[in-house]
Amino acid sequence: MGPEEFREAAHRLVDWVADYREAVASLPVRSKVGPGDVSGLLPKEAPERPEALSALIEDLDRVIVPGLTHAQHPRNFAWFPSNASLASVLGDIVAAGIGALGISWQSAPALTELEQVVCDWARKLCGLSEAWHGTIADGASTACLVALLAARERALGGTPGSQREGGLQASPVPLSVYTSQEAHSSVEKAVLLAGFGAANLRFVPVELPSRGMDVGALQAMMDEDVSAGLRPAAVVATAGTTATTAFDPLAGICAIARRHGAWVHVDAAMAGSALLLEGKRELFSGIEDASSISWNPHKWLGSVLETSLFYVKEPEALVSVMATDPSYLRSSRDGAVVQYRDWGLPLGRRFRALRLWALLRLEGAEAIRGRLQRDLVNAERLAAVVEAAPGWRLVAPLTIQTLCVVHEPAGLGGEELDAHTLAWCEAVNWGGGAHLTPARLDGRWMVRVSIGSETTEWADVEALWALMREAAAAVETGS
Amino acid sequence: MGPEEFREAAHRLVDWVADYREAVASLPVRSKVGPGDVSGLLPKEAPERPEALSALIEDLDRVIVPGLTHAQHPRNFAWFPSNASLASVLGDIVAAGIGALGISWQSAPALTELEQVVCDWARKLCGLSEAWHGTIADGASTACLVALLAARERALGGTPGSQREGGLQASPVPLSVYTSQEAHSSVEKAVLLAGFGAANLRFVPVELPSRGMDVGALQAMMDEDVSAGLRPAAVVATAGTTATTAFDPLAGICAIARRHGAWVHVDAAMAGSALLLEGKRELFSGIEDASSISWNPHKWLGSVLETSLFYVKEPEALVSVMATDPSYLRSSRDGAVVQYRDWGLPLGRRFRALRLWALLRLEGAEAIRGRLQRDLVNAERLAAVVEAAPGWRLVAPLTIQTLCVVHEPAGLGGEELDAHTLAWCEAVNWGGGAHLTPARLDGRWMVRVSIGSETTEWADVEALWALMREAAAAVETGS
Repeated sequence: MGPEEFREAAHRLVDWVADYREAVASLPVRSKVGPGDVSGLLPKEAPERPEALSALIEDLDRVIVPGLTHAQHPRNFAWFPSNASLASVLGDIVAAGIGALGISWQSAPALTELEQVVCDWARKLCGLSEAWHGTIADGASTACLVALLAARERALGGTPGSQREGGLQASPVPLSVYTSQEAHSSVEKAVLLAGFGAANLRFVPVELPSRGMDVGALQAMMDEDVSAGLRPAAVVATAGTTATTAFDPLAGICAIARRHGAWVHVDAAMAGSALLLEGKRELFSGIEDASSISWNPHKWLGSVLETSLFYVKEPEALVSVMATDPSYLRSSRDGAVVQYRDWGLPLGRRFRALRLWALLRLEGAEAIRGRLQRDLVNAERLAAVVEAAPGWRLVAPLTIQTLCVVHEPAGLGGEELDAHTLAWCEAVNWGGGAHLTPARLDGRWMVRVSIGSETTEWADVEALWALMREAAAAVETGS
Repeated sequence: MGPEEFREAAHRLVDWVADYREAVASLPVRSKVGPGDVSGLLPKEAPERPEALSALIEDLDRVIVPGLTHAQHPRNFAWFPSNASLASVLGDIVAAGIGALGISWQSAPALTELEQVVCDWARKLCGLSEAWHGTIADGASTACLVALLAARERALGGTPGSQREGGLQASPVPLSVYTSQEAHSSVEKAVLLAGFGAANLRFVPVELPSRGMDVGALQAMMDEDVSAGLRPAAVVATAGTTATTAFDPLAGICAIARRHGAWVHVDAAMAGSALLLEGKRELFSGIEDASSISWNPHKWLGSVLETSLFYVKEPEALVSVMATDPSYLRSSRDGAVVQYRDWGLPLGRRFRALRLWALLRLEGAEAIRGRLQRDLVNAERLAAVVEAAPGWRLVAPLTIQTLCVVHEPAGLGGEELDAHTLAWCEAVNWGGGAHLTPARLDGRWMVRVSIGSETTEWADVEALWALMREAAAAVETGS
């Protein structure tokens, strides 16, 4: 396809995207398709001859859109926000169009340097000190894995267990890792993939009502492990857990970890955006003492997906684990520049920074903060309404913008209550008028209401609340 | 930014992209900027107030484009092709615009099912059997790491070294991994990150002149390791090495690996596209006996970056390593659908399949094969020209579309010849008329000519050849 054909086709698809975004509020939030419905509508083989753009657009409307749960819907309250702000989409169009190849500084200097610049912009917006050096990972799962691999080598460097020697399987002492009972599943996954083994992962209890990690318990577990001959290699602290957006006490965690020389990675995947709001920074108190931080502008902030900021204090700790030096990637610039391939897993990357650059420039920091603040206010308003409503209750403190809600009809408890909870949540979702995610907390189901889609206004929250009450009442009366 | 503002802005940026692609052939292929030149032109902080789109476009022209080495240039012969076909860009525009969130089947059924469909389309185009199940990874580095993590658990499952128990650090027997001396640097990186340790990675010698792995040497190394108490866990075979596009003999490798129960991962990052050409499939003979395969449609085939096809025979081997089951990701569909988060590292993915879907539909398989075939012919023509030219020589067999070239002035050898090689290559690159990558082979430098940019025609190859001769002559005479 040549540039002129592209020009015409892309104009049509841009219109299609704009139309989709205009119409999305009128669509059911959660897709109603069943397993195999989408694939069943598609041919089993790629076409031999080129198809017309109109055929592709027809399939977008006929097959793809009905198969979507609409993350950009104003009444999407499920999981966490996943805002692909249209300003960020613009940056991504340029990135795809340029088609730059990021395998070294030399292969696309602007790709590397814009990533440095944008990571630094975001760092300053978050009030983080100059001690932090950033890169863009695809997601927080990957960032956590990279942090743990760096932590592993920090613990084993200079021993036969260094990856440059016998590797973890030759470790002279078993390494242990610590995280909260309420950490994201990606932490456990990263611990297992990094080879530490489930038996060496400690789930530290949380304190109530904050649900932040119990620092005393962390200290006791570390001391016990050391006595038993283990070496604490890392703590993964969470700033904003997935279930309840709880914050681990970072200052206390970092102080204890330091005594053991353990790496502290802060998983702030969702809540990192709140660092932009000075009024919320106290939740992150102590973050400057951590070893690495990741947070996802592709959640609340508004970047297109696969944009996870990953900051470290010592980039050398990444380079020592990730760097290879093949001849075909060498250049005369090697000493003078950052090679992001040595800061993470992939060799090649697309022009990731453009989507965040476009977002920040075209929206401006002030408006972004204003939007986040709007969501905080909406969450507080809904919290007040829920707590005032008979039978309804918040089961965890509201820290930012996600509420944890239960509806408790008189006399209902245990598994009956669980069934009630799942039923009214599913009724809301099935209706298509809003989308919520249930989650387990203290052995019972509750429902998360995560406010913060880019287009969600108070009217949308009010509408959700009406749907919730309606669904709960209907389930309660069996109608 | 609302849909109407986006519509207008996106039309302007689409025109910018089309203009860029029209003009790219007239730009110097390799960027002439130095370290810090790009970042030095940009503000140190994100703007507080929104900027106009025109300011962003101005910076694209003033800062970004001069800072690019143009992968989409018809005279880009560096590294491997990195074609972002405009048909694929169209799919990526839709993906960004929709902003679907791929964290489970339920979160975007069409995202998962289109990925299944497109992976299957590509499988059939490659002549691979139904035994293979595909997903899209971001790159071949990640795919190799995932394969090695699955191999590790296959070797350790049921022992205290299982990741569900003590992990690799509790392995009852050291695991070893095998790859060719000429494997990509990402293989070594993946082996180290998976915790095997450099001491347990065997670089198997290659045979000449094919430069494929010496199967007899592999067998001897494995036997020796087993005698020494190690357990061979995996072989990473390469179909198309980075330096010379050499092919390891897959049939022989798989036969030996099977005897030891070792996983065989085939890294076909670049050359996988050649599977589309029946005439080239013999190079991959035996691939059906492997355990996993990865290849990158974002190289020669034409997909926008971060599109790496990863096929496995036993998806359960991935799921057993990658799966977690947090309550907030559960849904009633869990048993009936594929959850791609359990096939790789990331939890959330963007709508990756769209870029490959759009490419295959809008170009059609026939035209894509025709383009690849064109590149093979151009490579053969250049090879004939080079071999007929006095002083010029190919230092490795031409298997697909990448030539390994040296120019040997009479009486020059050793480090003097290296200096000559690097000098004429750099002269071509510095001139901006074409871009080539030097690489080491058998301890000496040579220059890779990788033909296959989407817009590269024979006239471009001829022009490159003229530049090469001119540069070599100028360097030889010291002018």
